[in-house]
Amino acid sequence: MLPAIDGSPAELARRYRSVRAATLALTAPLSEADAQAQSMTDASPAKWHLAHTTWFFETLVLERFEPGFRPHQGAYRMLFNSYYNAIGQPAQRSQRGLITRPGLAEVLAYRRAVDERVQALLGGDPGATALSLLTLGLHHEQQHQELILTDLLHLLSCHPLLPAYRPAPAPAVGGAVPLSWIANEGGLVEIGHGGAGFVFDNEQPRHRQWLAPYALANRLVTQGEWADFVADGGYREPRWWLAAGWDWLRTHRIEHPLYWQRDGAGLWQVFSLRGLQPLQRERPVVQVSLYEADAFAAWSAAQSGLPLRLPTEAEWEHAAAPLAPAGLAEGNLLDDDRLEPQPAADRPGLQQLFGDVWEWTRSAYAPYPGFRPWDGAVGEYNGKFMANQVVLRGGSCATPRSHLRASYRNFFPTDARWQFSGLRLACDAA
Amino acid sequence: MLPAIDGSPAELARRYRSVRAATLALTAPLSEADAQAQSMTDASPAKWHLAHTTWFFETLVLERFEPGFRPHQGAYRMLFNSYYNAIGQPAQRSQRGLITRPGLAEVLAYRRAVDERVQALLGGDPGATALSLLTLGLHHEQQHQELILTDLLHLLSCHPLLPAYRPAPAPAVGGAVPLSWIANEGGLVEIGHGGAGFVFDNEQPRHRQWLAPYALANRLVTQGEWADFVADGGYREPRWWLAAGWDWLRTHRIEHPLYWQRDGAGLWQVFSLRGLQPLQRERPVVQVSLYEADAFAAWSAAQSGLPLRLPTEAEWEHAAAPLAPAGLAEGNLLDDDRLEPQPAADRPGLQQLFGDVWEWTRSAYAPYPGFRPWDGAVGEYNGKFMANQVVLRGGSCATPRSHLRASYRNFFPTDARWQFSGLRLACDAA
Amino acid sequence: MLPAIDGSPAELARRYRSVRAATLALTAPLSEADAQAQSMTDASPAKWHLAHTTWFFETLVLERFEPGFRPHQGAYRMLFNSYYNAIGQPAQRSQRGLITRPGLAEVLAYRRAVDERVQALLGGDPGATALSLLTLGLHHEQQHQELILTDLLHLLSCHPLLPAYRPAPAPAVGGAVPLSWIANEGGLVEIGHGGAGFVFDNEQPRHRQWLAPYALANRLVTQGEWADFVADGGYREPRWWLAAGWDWLRTHRIEHPLYWQRDGAGLWQVFSLRGLQPLQRERPVVQVSLYEADAFAAWSAAQSGLPLRLPTEAEWEHAAAPLAPAGLAEGNLLDDDRLEPQPAADRPGLQQLFGDVWEWTRSAYAPYPGFRPWDGAVGEYNGKFMANQVVLRGGSCATPRSHLRASYRNFFPTDARWQFSGLRLACDAA
Amino acid sequence: MLPAIDGSPAELARRYRSVRAATLALTAPLSEADAQAQSMTDASPAKWHLAHTTWFFETLVLERFEPGFRPHQGAYRMLFNSYYNAIGQPAQRSQRGLITRPGLAEVLAYRRAVDERVQALLGGDPGATALSLLTLGLHHEQQHQELILTDLLHLLSCHPLLPAYRPAPAPAVGGAVPLSWIANEGGLVEIGHGGAGFVFDNEQPRHRQWLAPYALANRLVTQGEWADFVADGGYREPRWWLAAGWDWLRTHRIEHPLYWQRDGAGLWQVFSLRGLQPLQRERPVVQVSLYEADAFAAWSAAQSGLPLRLPTEAEWEHAAAPLAPAGLAEGNLLDDDRLEPQPAADRPGLQQLFGDVWEWTRSAYAPYPGFRPWDGAVGEYNGKFMANQVVLRGGSCATPRSHLRASYRNFFPTDARWQFSGLRLACDAA
Repeated sequence: MLPAIDGSPAELARRYRSVRAATLALTAPLSEADAQAQSMTDASPAKWHLAHTTWFFETLVLERFEPGFRPHQGAYRMLFNSYYNAIGQPAQRSQRGLITRPGLAEVLAYRRAVDERVQALLGGDPGATALSLLTLGLHHEQQHQELILTDLLHLLSCHPLLPAYRPAPAPAVGGAVPLSWIANEGGLVEIGHGGAGFVFDNEQPRHRQWLAPYALANRLVTQGEWADFVADGGYREPRWWLAAGWDWLRTHRIEHPLYWQRDGAGLWQVFSLRGLQPLQRERPVVQVSLYEADAFAAWSAAQSGLPLRLPTEAEWEHAAAPLAPAGLAEGNLLDDDRLEPQPAADRPGLQQLFGDVWEWTRSAYAPYPGFRPWDGAVGEYNGKFMANQVVLRGGSCATPRSHLRASYRNFFPTDARWQFSGLRLACDAA
Repeated sequence: MLPAIDGSPAELARRYRSVRAATLALTAPLSEADAQAQSMTDASPAKWHLAHTTWFFETLVLERFEPGFRPHQGAYRMLFNSYYNAIGQPAQRSQRGLITRPGLAEVLAYRRAVDERVQALLGGDPGATALSLLTLGLHHEQQHQELILTDLLHLLSCHPLLPAYRPAPAPAVGGAVPLSWIANEGGLVEIGHGGAGFVFDNEQPRHRQWLAPYALANRLVTQGEWADFVADGGYREPRWWLAAGWDWLRTHRIEHPLYWQRDGAGLWQVFSLRGLQPLQRERPVVQVSLYEADAFAAWSAAQSGLPLRLPTEAEWEHAAAPLAPAGLAEGNLLDDDRLEPQPAADRPGLQQLFGDVWEWTRSAYAPYPGFRPWDGAVGEYNGKFMANQVVLRGGSCATPRSHLRASYRNFFPTDARWQFSGLRLACDAA
Repeated sequence: MLPAIDGSPAELARRYRSVRAATLALTAPLSEADAQAQSMTDASPAKWHLAHTTWFFETLVLERFEPGFRPHQGAYRMLFNSYYNAIGQPAQRSQRGLITRPGLAEVLAYRRAVDERVQALLGGDPGATALSLLTLGLHHEQQHQELILTDLLHLLSCHPLLPAYRPAPAPAVGGAVPLSWIANEGGLVEIGHGGAGFVFDNEQPRHRQWLAPYALANRLVTQGEWADFVADGGYREPRWWLAAGWDWLRTHRIEHPLYWQRDGAGLWQVFSLRGLQPLQRERPVVQVSLYEADAFAAWSAAQSGLPLRLPTEAEWEHAAAPLAPAGLAEGNLLDDDRLEPQPAADRPGLQQLFGDVWEWTRSAYAPYPGFRPWDGAVGEYNGKFMANQVVLRGGSCATPRSHLRASYRNFFPTDARWQFSGLRLACDAA
Repeated sequence: MLPAIDGSPAELARRYRSVRAATLALTAPLSEADAQAQSMTDASPAKWHLAHTTWFFETLVLERFEPGFRPHQGAYRMLFNSYYNAIGQPAQRSQRGLITRPGLAEVLAYRRAVDERVQALLGGDPGATALSLLTLGLHHEQQHQELILTDLLHLLSCHPLLPAYRPAPAPAVGGAVPLSWIANEGGLVEIGHGGAGFVFDNEQPRHRQWLAPYALANRLVTQGEWADFVADGGYREPRWWLAAGWDWLRTHRIEHPLYWQRDGAGLWQVFSLRGLQPLQRERPVVQVSLYEADAFAAWSAAQSGLPLRLPTEAEWEHAAAPLAPAGLAEGNLLDDDRLEPQPAADRPGLQQLFGDVWEWTRSAYAPYPGFRPWDGAVGEYNGKFMANQVVLRGGSCATPRSHLRASYRNFFPTDARWQFSGLRLACDAA
């Protein structure tokens, strides 16, 4: 099995230009130094992202389907391999920031050269497999667009001066939206992708699942609610925490979300791609781990007396799918260029399902019944990560609109905090 | 909600005597030194197990329900608390082997004193809550019976001379049983415990789940099959492994199951509670991690061309429940005193479902829909461990028969290897 | 070269009985559990000390010189080897606490058996090499007598209840002795051992060294002075600390000597072999690292305006040698059975040079000019540790009197704190 | 006390221009990416070196002595502080590679601006303290010139393609020079700096020391000799190694000098600033740790039957001082631009004392008798590192000629390997 092809060769050619240009636009404000540095093993330098996404097209498409293929630079095959063991031993992940050569200009030239060759390939008749892998390459590049921003934000947060990626906009407007519950009766439902069009292998096959009645919060958990949790001693009280979360919290001396800090007067400030700003209570909380999200849910349950918890991914998808009928998600996404989650709108129904922040679910990342990885090297894309990771749903303010859908499964380890990860509460229904 | 009561006060009194005596029988062959040493943070000294199980009755039952309660020794409340934050700060888990005082004789006196007081309490009318917690205490002690053996085996494996817990028996008889597949059509099934009688909170509530058709292997994976996997380079080929498993394998230089070693001629030997013995191909493989089990399944799929995998816990329970109609599991269990997994019998149908080895499933340990932890301190028993652990089913040769049932959910991290953990393959049905 | 022989065979036989009995007396109060536990890699279980000192006689003396030698138990050769690579691969140091077999009774039987065989050997004419190694074995055992106490104290300090090795005595009497300075004009002096009688290879050869004029404090630094250092923020001010010491302090969150803690009222209490007691200002401070000792000297220099520092080992020995004319040191030593350092006497001259606490010097542990390790396996005794260790001088309240002399060089890493290590200040003379 | 002033203001101004220009020349071949990356905590990015050396002049000279001083950029005071606690909390050493802003161009502009201001200051009459600190700043910058090269070489060695800093020159000519011994009778000698002119505080005061007769090898140990050591199993035989060295070797799986690797045919290749080249037997071995140097000496002693060892720093200085009579060292130094150690010349007498490689001594880095750190913040320059480091002498092919002298004490930890560190053997004389 291979990825579905997402359009005619001409459409793919247009889409290719657009996606590749969007990546360049994201990295345009960066100096070569900004693009070089790697702030932790989990995060990659922007230059590496630029090169690796290009490597994907060169190695998985051109190498197999371009007549008379010759590598742009033979060494790039190893230098910019992320984790595909089928392609050879990748360079060490923790040392991506040490690949100073090629320089940024050479990487950009690499991009241009591969772009030309891909366009030439699309101008001919490369065949279904090539189009399939090329479609995958575009979605792959869109994933890396989000990672470019999350990794860059982490890098900037390590700089003692906390420089902003973009100047701060006017503060988000809008008052607080009261929390309410949207009930769903569940039953024997179907989730997963079943139709045509590109999806990742891990979204398939569509399959039945029984859901007990449940309710979802109308909106995301806010920074204000989270500040109340902190003020109530939430990070010092073991009873809210999973045992592994409590160990993690004590080992790393975690006391607040990743990019929060107090100013001289003790007031919270939040660092984002827009720089350091005072906490705004109505904005969704972001950059929290699954451990924190789960603890917040446990605390909220005790405060409210309700059986609150995180939703399962099936509950989330079952509720969200009708809101993206043509597969197109509406929300505060990368295309809106806000780069920060925004307060909810005061409207009836489920708000903020798509965009703003990825929503932690209570579902471990696991194969769907009947799951088959794609054939060939791209079989390593998703399946091999199905252990000790948890599913997040709904995209974020750093996710491209055309990359998102209701069946999309993002996944990260339980202690990951540098993504645009937040949460929505769920509740067992009577 | 509290644990169900498992019998009349008189029946509980009898059962109490029997369970407590069984624990003492297990530790009888140990010297004070054997009972003191702690070989790793995950494993506890036998003396600690003896004291902690007693602490459970004293702290959770006597302290609340015995008129005029006075502690046997005040300090034991902290020294022998495992992880109940609601009861106070426990002593450090990694330093249980440093609690040299009280000595073994004092701990045994502690056991006797608490036994007398519990029996006196049961002779009166302690009320439903006390009986409930006392029932839990008995099942808790049975869990620790298994842990006494797994922890002791690990300790003995760290001794350069590999001493045996018990002299080796005559080798198991019986030839190889061919692998075959028992199909199950699935559908909308129910799993979890729904009736009366004691179960853990994590086995509840009984709930519906949709199962696609599937098949289970008729027997466990054997040491011989595993030796073939090793010989085929299974531990050196990344494509069989989950990414986290491959990292784990390389970091810890894992090349075979935990207690395997080669003799001078390169032949496999296996260390068990019966000492070091030549590998017997027909015995079930044991002391493998989830990572290893999953890799073996991937390798087996490639060898056979079938969509092989580990079963889900729902598949396992749905298949197993009919085989333990009155709740009573048959199999090679602790009561049989073999202390090693045994070859399968050559009979039709599913063999070895109960006993021999815990079977790794492909299901993350998660709350069932509508799960509620028990009230009070015992609410910390199960729920707080529901992250980064995987469910195992079916009990082992170290599980007491009266402690096991089809709905029983054991759970360990993906890299845990010192338990009696093995596997049975599953297959997607057409 | 081999160790000097310390007496006639008959004298050695008497001395052997006495030294071996002293070891047993030290461990007599311990249970098998106490004797089994290992609290950190650097510390060994008392049972291991009992066995290893016996192994030394069996392996280095009996195995070579006893006619028809047969090992007491063949496996002990590896189990109780500490670090002699020439004798084979030793068991892992960090896992000495896991050697539960042989048990304590068997180890005591091993001692008795080897004792008989050594006495039999001494009854004959074993030759000079045997007598030489036997002499070394006695001094080796005396070193382990001190280690039995330091390692046991560390173990007891890890027990949440802080049990005492011996009941607390009446508090030490005596008022504060004012600090004064004993000047020494230095010049071209000789240090190191030059005469007959047993010394370690590292005390040789006697050699010349030029000393500038210097002065030594008349007494050790006291707990009261150290409490002033702490109260003045000494552990929070980087300027007093060696860079490596400051890193160490921050990494391990060090705020006071190893066995100090505050009571509920904030008053210092000190844990020792005599249990937990209120700090007594006049007692010497003990269980501090070289980093702490050096920082205290820097702080003292700033307080006093004097060029204070730690002494070099040559300064110390040059000043101390005349005070032990016949080689016999007077002071609060193990034979006095106080087991804690005592306040200084109010007498003129250098006090507390021998006994009480080992005194950190500012001298790295290095070979003396012309140093030659002993021949054979015992060449590994001292020389191979001459890197990243610092010399301490003068013995402690846990050092046997017959084991000490002015030329004795003890050595530990700069961060070691569990020994009876304290300090005396020195001063450059005008 | 303050550093000595190394010339008139006009001479210092000339020297300032020359030293600063030399730094720029070293970094000229680097891209911004090359200058940004940090390959390990011990190594710093070239950009950081460029900025930090400038920071030294700005903070320690301009800030105190420039009338109306205003900082170039206030934040640089913290960003480019290395370890001076007296100046404030420095940025984290391990994260120097994350300081992507200011960029390289801004750092170069910072250099130019400070250069102008320093020259203006020197044009006036800044006073003795300013001239003293300025002199220190120049020597400080020369130290960093060597570090720029050693840190860059380490960075390049982490790149999978092993790029060269400079194209490889023609191989060094010259045959093997036989090893011979130059005897020295020792006696009561003086070492340390006693005259006028700049030296570091740690080279003072000049003081007496007694030396037993000794001999030094006429030349450095070569790569060929080292290859013999490796071929003889030198890295697998514990008896050659210090105990701490053996632990280090096994923990890090050390099997050869840092930048050695085998080609496909098993032949040694050596990576240097000139790229990867076949091992040349006559070149001095370089990039070895003290542990390796000491083990080689022990192995050499066993091979030769002579009491070989590393020299002490006093022996080295006593022998070397006469060879640099006017304080000026001759040898293969940075000014020669060879950037690699060269084979010895076949001449009588001690060769290669200065330049080529720093020579490990057997002397722990310790204060000379009467040592006083400089006053003020620069008191942190040397003294606080006097623990667990060993002295190296003689400079290397990366040391500027005007920076070196016979009394110069370099120092590194016993496991440091990325410096131009090699060795010369010494021998006890009869």
